[in-house]
Amino acid sequence: MAVPTLPPPKESNVDVLIVGAGPAGYMAALWLAKLGIKTKFIDKRSTKIFTGQADGLQPRVLEVFETFGFVDRAIKEVAVGYEACFYEPDETGRIRRVDKIPEGVPGISRFNGSVIHQGRIETWLSDAIEEFSGGALTVERPLAPESLEIESADSTSEYPVRVVLKRLPDDNASPEQFGHKVENGLYRQFEGDQINPVSSSQDDTEVLRAKYVLGCDGAHSWVRKQLGIEHKGETTDYVWGVLDIVPVTDFPDIRKRCSIHSKDGGSIMVIPRENGIVRLYIQLEGVANEADEATNVADDSTPSTATNGEKKKARVDRSKLTSEHILATAQNIFKPYSLEVAEMHWFTAYQIGQRVATHFQKDNRVFIAGDACHTHSPKAGQGMNVSMMDTFNLAWKIAYVVKGLAKPSILTTYEDERHTVAEDLIAYDLKLSRLFSSKPGEISTEEFRRVIDQGSAFTTGCTVDYGASLLMDKPADQPRDVPYCSPLATKLAIGMRLPDAKLVMQSDARPWFLNQQLPSTGQFRLLIFIGDYAQTPALKTQLSDIGAFLAESETALQKLRDDNVLQPLLIHASPQAKVEWDDFPIVFRPRDKRGVMNYWLILADTPSMHEITGDAYEKYGIDKGVGAAVLLRPDGYVTKITEPTVEGIKDIWKFLSRFLVALEPSTACTFSSNAFSTKSKSRDD
Amino acid sequence: MAVPTLPPPKESNVDVLIVGAGPAGYMAALWLAKLGIKTKFIDKRSTKIFTGQADGLQPRVLEVFETFGFVDRAIKEVAVGYEACFYEPDETGRIRRVDKIPEGVPGISRFNGSVIHQGRIETWLSDAIEEFSGGALTVERPLAPESLEIESADSTSEYPVRVVLKRLPDDNASPEQFGHKVENGLYRQFEGDQINPVSSSQDDTEVLRAKYVLGCDGAHSWVRKQLGIEHKGETTDYVWGVLDIVPVTDFPDIRKRCSIHSKDGGSIMVIPRENGIVRLYIQLEGVANEADEATNVADDSTPSTATNGEKKKARVDRSKLTSEHILATAQNIFKPYSLEVAEMHWFTAYQIGQRVATHFQKDNRVFIAGDACHTHSPKAGQGMNVSMMDTFNLAWKIAYVVKGLAKPSILTTYEDERHTVAEDLIAYDLKLSRLFSSKPGEISTEEFRRVIDQGSAFTTGCTVDYGASLLMDKPADQPRDVPYCSPLATKLAIGMRLPDAKLVMQSDARPWFLNQQLPSTGQFRLLIFIGDYAQTPALKTQLSDIGAFLAESETALQKLRDDNVLQPLLIHASPQAKVEWDDFPIVFRPRDKRGVMNYWLILADTPSMHEITGDAYEKYGIDKGVGAAVLLRPDGYVTKITEPTVEGIKDIWKFLSRFLVALEPSTACTFSSNAFSTKSKSRDD
Repeated sequence: MAVPTLPPPKESNVDVLIVGAGPAGYMAALWLAKLGIKTKFIDKRSTKIFTGQADGLQPRVLEVFETFGFVDRAIKEVAVGYEACFYEPDETGRIRRVDKIPEGVPGISRFNGSVIHQGRIETWLSDAIEEFSGGALTVERPLAPESLEIESADSTSEYPVRVVLKRLPDDNASPEQFGHKVENGLYRQFEGDQINPVSSSQDDTEVLRAKYVLGCDGAHSWVRKQLGIEHKGETTDYVWGVLDIVPVTDFPDIRKRCSIHSKDGGSIMVIPRENGIVRLYIQLEGVANEADEATNVADDSTPSTATNGEKKKARVDRSKLTSEHILATAQNIFKPYSLEVAEMHWFTAYQIGQRVATHFQKDNRVFIAGDACHTHSPKAGQGMNVSMMDTFNLAWKIAYVVKGLAKPSILTTYEDERHTVAEDLIAYDLKLSRLFSSKPGEISTEEFRRVIDQGSAFTTGCTVDYGASLLMDKPADQPRDVPYCSPLATKLAIGMRLPDAKLVMQSDARPWFLNQQLPSTGQFRLLIFIGDYAQTPALKTQLSDIGAFLAESETALQKLRDDNVLQPLLIHASPQAKVEWDDFPIVFRPRDKRGVMNYWLILADTPSMHEITGDAYEKYGIDKGVGAAVLLRPDGYVTKITEPTVEGIKDIWKFLSRFLVALEPSTACTFSSNAFSTKSKSRDD
Repeated sequence: MAVPTLPPPKESNVDVLIVGAGPAGYMAALWLAKLGIKTKFIDKRSTKIFTGQADGLQPRVLEVFETFGFVDRAIKEVAVGYEACFYEPDETGRIRRVDKIPEGVPGISRFNGSVIHQGRIETWLSDAIEEFSGGALTVERPLAPESLEIESADSTSEYPVRVVLKRLPDDNASPEQFGHKVENGLYRQFEGDQINPVSSSQDDTEVLRAKYVLGCDGAHSWVRKQLGIEHKGETTDYVWGVLDIVPVTDFPDIRKRCSIHSKDGGSIMVIPRENGIVRLYIQLEGVANEADEATNVADDSTPSTATNGEKKKARVDRSKLTSEHILATAQNIFKPYSLEVAEMHWFTAYQIGQRVATHFQKDNRVFIAGDACHTHSPKAGQGMNVSMMDTFNLAWKIAYVVKGLAKPSILTTYEDERHTVAEDLIAYDLKLSRLFSSKPGEISTEEFRRVIDQGSAFTTGCTVDYGASLLMDKPADQPRDVPYCSPLATKLAIGMRLPDAKLVMQSDARPWFLNQQLPSTGQFRLLIFIGDYAQTPALKTQLSDIGAFLAESETALQKLRDDNVLQPLLIHASPQAKVEWDDFPIVFRPRDKRGVMNYWLILADTPSMHEITGDAYEKYGIDKGVGAAVLLRPDGYVTKITEPTVEGIKDIWKFLSRFLVALEPSTACTFSSNAFSTKSKSRDD
């Protein structure tokens, strides 16, 4: 390592460094702030995003926002897709509506696919990060990494990743899109990427030693390049334009999601947005294959490694990529309907490409997430969502390891789980892009809608199904595309997120959606579905036995509870008239040191006097006469299912002992208590 | 008027002066801020309330909060009552649960009665006032009125109310309850009341000339006294204590609302609150009739005029009103259940009294609202709610008159409408207080529950039914307690608030509760229920005729729209497959000057592809083959119902012309446009 002749730059340690303040970076910061992990969060741009870029929020991400407490902000502001219309040319060549179907999958989630510009979403995340961290964690900008080294695997350093950071001059880091003209995304490969990493002054640099580094730095990820990870895939010839406009039109379905195929002019996707805005994705013809040597083209998905060894694709003619040209193309497709612009908020054009990084980490010390791992077309509205879900999957695992609660081996599940999702995403996007970019007549309307239908569930984000692993108790040979369910809960797949259901809080009779009672606190949840215990003698005994087993202070529960890594919840299905509060083992209504009872751990799958409740057991395929014990990960995914018996609970302890340090017999005694205590205060209404 | 020898105090004009920043004052300020009225808002206390005092939010108030955009803040924080339990002594004299019933009236509102301390509620109101007024309107404190004069009725002054205000020294205006001890409400008649109104220095005084003054200054209202309005009613012998505690108990229903009657110890009401707090109302025996001469007693409802001519009631013995005594009484009633205290947040004691002011205004220039008009026991959780609804009724009327939109005569409806509500409230409270304070055996459980049941609907706030007036088109001889419904809408009572229903937005298929589409913008709403127009030829013609009539630029609608005082909404009941966007008259999908269409004025009472909708016509008793035109006031109350025909609309114009200046033939031409434009931008998703 070269020693500078100037005074050495300042050095500091941090548990986690997040590089890049986009959706993946913000979600990582949110989770780490919530779990109290010492984090540094940097971005090379000097300001946040004000407009344009990504806009889709899938139902699963809204569910996750709910667990962090700010989904209500989203619901108040977003436009929501409820219906999708299909337009095709009639015999005279003019477009007309040929079908109308539900958008998304009715009933799969309480939320529907929604849209709003990325800047608002980052604001909600940013506000929550400030709240959770008490103001301690904010994005430091403009700050870029200059070098990154991981110490060799046999190093015993606690902070084995060394990163040199450089503060950029503000004027160097302001993307052109924020000028005094219509904001546009044509120049998104902004200058920050081209900054010479050789620093001219040591004053602006600092050395950071981190336990873990997260590269959330976008499609042209600097971190990915440092790790030498290949970004595999290719750029296609398809070129699309995007307009975010407040339209003046007589098109009757402008506030619904529409797929429009014209006879000669190409295709359009209509995505209604917030505040009267509509986003149009417009197929552009005749701009590709003309200017191979163009370099400043806007192609979100063309990787920066494209010039390194790969056959170079035809590039678009930048001179044609004006908002006027894109609008004229749209107007032609819309005929006989009018389309004018009252306000133009943003525009861009991109060449479709699909790429996935071959690895999502190095040494399980430096990880990449979001666009750094996967790039694709924006039309399925997945990019921002999959990016956030990448770090929602990763950050709690890092927190567990940093706190010494779990073995580092759980970190390997990140790449396993999310690489599969990325591959599925690229496969779907490839299919969708080809469909949308097909010439008239190439693909039938039926075929088109079949693909859309099949994709609907995927695009909700609710069908992600993680494979067998240290954290997923299912057969290793389970086929990837077949959900694995226990016979005890025939509609709950191990590896998938827990679907929502409305239950009644036993103590105060308030109806709640289960997801509202599963806030992201970092805890595993042990849901004991004890069925109709009041009218099933065997279950009554099981409940009592489980209560006694859990109450023994020497058992694992005490340790898990002390660490705040496991929260048991009891969900019964007995009629309220047969139930008394004192029926329930004290372990489900524990008292704090002062004697104040926790009233929020027992839920009933019974009819409310006020709202429609009582279908959870049926929804989950659990027999009220048999019950089930369901273990959820901190991110809400079902990870193991057993019988609701003492033996079943012991099985769960055994499973947890594979990765939870507290359950290793040798370390249990020395384990520090209340690891997450500051961030997981008991729920209250 | 005496002229001071010192330099004259500064003088200024204001449209409205609000005296007193409690719930009534905040609601007045909220409405006036929303409608852009120049308002001054003063309070004699130096700080806001931090704890204790009122805590109940009835469903109707939550509906109103929704129209102002902040009900989501409430829902996240409050405790909600869903079930009520009744406890009585068994043969051994120990209490046991004898019944469990729904709390409130299932289905009457989307919201259930909720509780949270008054300080939080005032924070939500205060934040919204800041938002609506752009930060211009805040409470000025500590500032108290010294004198108030109304110019004679024949005055032509624009600002006929003259008020001298005095800035108080901060230390004089801090109630004792904010000391470094357990906060308590025993000394709520705080010093501010006793300040000598003769000012020692002119520097601290200012003269304000107002168009209207609102006295929202509490049970001991200074404004009421200036107006010489009598506060009629009496104080009873019943004394109750209040504890806000985090309890340590084995009482199984501590998180439900409970009425407990013990054998010898008296009664308790249990009201579970936010953050694990429980409020207990505890009947206190043996503290009354002992110290007639006690003066510093805490009696919320004892009026300050009690010493003036009325037979003086027995007063409580203040020395016994300690938290220890109140808790000991509660513990005795709770037997055999334990009751200890982990945290005590607040306590008080009060002597029940019921009073109503004989008038709620003077010259329709100075008004009183809230506790200044009506005082009663807190047990029904009505005080804060009725207070807020007083000014929610009044403030929009004042705004209309201040803006020159309506004749001053509409102001007379305030006293008419709200005095009746106050009388009903007092009558109910009297009944309830006697029940709760009755000795064991005096009243049967059945009788007790019958009164509670009858009162449930009343306490939701959703059954308020305003009588015939300039603003209510119903027969003058309609009996007060019988709702008046048009045969066109057999379940919509004229005089009552519009019940909620879930509809589908025609343009984008998003399901909405109707209340969410009726934000408090100051507009009257003309709801055209055009039924199943697509399959009913007569209705199809009516729709087209109404469209043509409304579209004529010379008609009243144009003027009303220019003033932004009337918003038409179309609610149809035709199957979606039979409906095309272009069916609808352009008046329901108008364009702005740029040509951008308003997509948010047509709703469908049809099944959604995603949620349960489509029962509005049935709920309102409207025939899908006949329809109805329903006029709503800016505060959401149904005011007139006609046929959905051109004749019906003309009837509505005629009705509106009784009080809307825009519809008077002589003034229509000179009328200023867009009166509420800054505050009523078009809705968007």
